[in-house]
Amino acid sequence: MKTVEIVGIGTGNPEHVTMQAINALNRADALFIPDKGAGKSELADVRREICRRYVTNAAGIIDYEPPVRNPAIADYKARVDAWHEALAGQFAELLAQVPDGGTGAFLVWGDPGLYDSTIRILERVRAAMPGAFRVSIIPGITSIQALTAAHGIALNRVGEPVQMTTGRRLAELGPQGDSVVMLDGQTAFLGQDPELEIFWGAYLGTADEILISGRLGDVAGEIIDTRQAARDQHGWIMDVYLLRERG
Amino acid sequence: MKTVEIVGIGTGNPEHVTMQAINALNRADALFIPDKGAGKSELADVRREICRRYVTNAAGIIDYEPPVRNPAIADYKARVDAWHEALAGQFAELLAQVPDGGTGAFLVWGDPGLYDSTIRILERVRAAMPGAFRVSIIPGITSIQALTAAHGIALNRVGEPVQMTTGRRLAELGPQGDSVVMLDGQTAFLGQDPELEIFWGAYLGTADEILISGRLGDVAGEIIDTRQAARDQHGWIMDVYLLRERG
Ligand SMILES: C[S@@+](CC[C@H](N)C(=O)[O-])C[C@H]1O[C@@H](n2cnc3c(N)ncnc32)[C@H](O)[C@@H]1O
Ligand SMILES: C[S@@+](CC[C@H](N)C(=O)[O-])C[C@H]1O[C@@H](n2cnc3c(N)ncnc32)[C@H](O)[C@@H]1O
Repeated sequence: MKTVEIVGIGTGNPEHVTMQAINALNRADALFIPDKGAGKSELADVRREICRRYVTNAAGIIDYEPPVRNPAIADYKARVDAWHEALAGQFAELLAQVPDGGTGAFLVWGDPGLYDSTIRILERVRAAMPGAFRVSIIPGITSIQALTAAHGIALNRVGEPVQMTTGRRLAELGPQGDSVVMLDGQTAFLGQDPELEIFWGAYLGTADEILISGRLGDVAGEIIDTRQAARDQHGWIMDVYLLRERG
Repeated sequence: MKTVEIVGIGTGNPEHVTMQAINALNRADALFIPDKGAGKSELADVRREICRRYVTNAAGIIDYEPPVRNPAIADYKARVDAWHEALAGQFAELLAQVPDGGTGAFLVWGDPGLYDSTIRILERVRAAMPGAFRVSIIPGITSIQALTAAHGIALNRVGEPVQMTTGRRLAELGPQGDSVVMLDGQTAFLGQDPELEIFWGAYLGTADEILISGRLGDVAGEIIDTRQAARDQHGWIMDVYLLRERG
């Protein structure tokens, strides 16, 4: 039986990595690093930098190029499902390269449990190859924690709940109380109550980190412009924000 | 001007600590460690173990005994406010022990932004001593991440939101969709729909970690009994759980 470690590595700052992650990476026989093509190579660079700084056994690095979602599939769930299926095939091939009784480690952005599909995809692979491997998960610093730390704020107000959601859901339902919004390519904050307060951050943890906060009605335009300019410059953007009542 | 680092240390496993936290602790002149009295000394022990393993400059450790909330104040907000005020006084005294231009570090359980008052209390202290110090926050692994990693699950279902809330709020409002519940001394899961699925964990990250999951109606009794027995044995308990629809 093989072991698969799903290792959270934090969200941009190589120092986000935990001792638990470093120890797991050093125990592994193979380290799987997704290379998202020229556009997002900074993300692969963070993973390589972590290996360079903290992993003594760097011989085991295996790069792979993950498939992309097929925009021709209109239905969201069906599109995600087809993408997971393609990834499952790729993961099975990667795991074939792990020696019997050995360990392969996936370096996952942020925390493996937060809006990431690695756990689910490995469940698929496991269902197809029962008994072939066991999975262990190592938590990592999320972009939510990087966001609040950078703004110097607590995520929750005293005793109050906070929702984690996506741009898609925010656009459909509006904020359900204090909300952290991820995966918002559509800038869904634009349609919301201008009296809300927003704490926005992009490229958190990296040297390119950008922070903007204030009354939504006052800063929404600045965020849109900053976001567009940064996206043009980098070729991609990752941003996240907290929306809540002011006060 | 002095610097105050609010350092997240993770939730029980000393290996939860990040490289960023280790580097900050090693740069600090004073490390403040709360000793919660005999009952919860395991929590102070985790902090001491982190210093022992990863901090070369252990000369700077300063123990303090935080005040407790006054149960005679019936109103929740007023009780919290009085407690924060007492803590602010204590923090000001601790910071007086940091040399001019030097750095003091608070070792905070989990992430400093998640249901923790250190950031807010230091804001109070700063308001009373303008210009005396700057604050920097270092994210840490939360009990939510320790919970989902231990259960081998993702926190969110594909594209779905998740709410972080407290036992108090769950008792008042019921779950608002998929919910992670913290600070639940009153076992508010008992009153909820028995068809929900629960992923429960106590003492996460420690050698005493306990995990129970299943249909709420099937496992609620087992959780109550396990929780009571563990609490009797340790003198305290910290537990957290995810509630969501099954499937
Ligand atoms: C597929 S999700 C992965 C989240 C990740 N597992 C985590 O724990 O943060 C990607 C989304 O996370 C957020 N994100 C991740 N890293 C970020 C960063 N460094 N700065 C800003 N947002 C980030 C963005 O909202 C992005 O759309
Ligand atoms: C005052 S809050 C602090 C939360 C912390 N800042 C974090 O990031 O997890 C304390 C609550 O966190 C949860 N908690 C913290 N550590 C835990 C652990 N090791 N196991 C289970 N629950 C834990 C429990 O719900 C507990 O009531």
